[in-house]
Amino acid sequence: MTTSFDPKELLIRLVNEVWNAGNIEASDQYIAPKYTIHHDPGDPWDKQEIDLLGYKERVRLSRAPFPDQRFTIHDILADDNRVVITWYWSATHKGDIPGFPATDNQIQMSGATVYYFENGRFTGHWQITDRLGVYRQLHQGLAKP
Amino acid sequence: MTTSFDPKELLIRLVNEVWNAGNIEASDQYIAPKYTIHHDPGDPWDKQEIDLLGYKERVRLSRAPFPDQRFTIHDILADDNRVVITWYWSATHKGDIPGFPATDNQIQMSGATVYYFENGRFTGHWQITDRLGVYRQLHQGLAKP
Repeated sequence: MTTSFDPKELLIRLVNEVWNAGNIEASDQYIAPKYTIHHDPGDPWDKQEIDLLGYKERVRLSRAPFPDQRFTIHDILADDNRVVITWYWSATHKGDIPGFPATDNQIQMSGATVYYFENGRFTGHWQITDRLGVYRQLHQGLAKP
Repeated sequence: MTTSFDPKELLIRLVNEVWNAGNIEASDQYIAPKYTIHHDPGDPWDKQEIDLLGYKERVRLSRAPFPDQRFTIHDILADDNRVVITWYWSATHKGDIPGFPATDNQIQMSGATVYYFENGRFTGHWQITDRLGVYRQLHQGLAKP
């Protein structure tokens, strides 16, 4: 029995289940054994190739300061072996980041991510986020009344 | 006589002819009478709807400090009425920007842009650029020896 593979549906599930709901172990269903962060300025894993354990650790550490984080998919396009999403992100700054202690402030971000897939699993991504917008919000949080 | 419409080819020509080569009047061949900047953090035209004259003015003002600017398309995907490019940009900082006098330094940037089209013309875009990377390079240019 074969089921048709829908890369858009797979990506929507990865975002909702793993990155939003924090069900990190479910990464097994979406991520290939080798996963490459092709381009992701500001991401600690930029340019690295990681395995499934590394991917789960990346999700865990990324979510730690922002445990209620939510990516809202704005648009999704698929073409050949790639799917791209544009997205909005919001989260409460609940945990310390080096230089930026937790503030309980709401932080907003937007970005675009191209995912590459093979054999029904994602093998890597190329990403741009509006990190200047985030830095400004974090710096505002440092200005105590 | 009809010719088949290839949105990827149209976008590649827009980028090369108008944005890279600076043939601003050629915008007529690519841009719809009403063009919407849906999302473009840091762009002075963010959220605005502009006409063809406005589009040409946007290209002119964007290119002024960086007359040799070059977008290199990294990847291109098309789906339904949208085309998305991921890109690298480089330019020499030849003209003054408010707060940042010209330095002759090489500046690098990367980004992703989704273009929407209708009737063979682009009607708007949704864009993210790594503006933090650019700001850091511009600030480095301020540190005189």
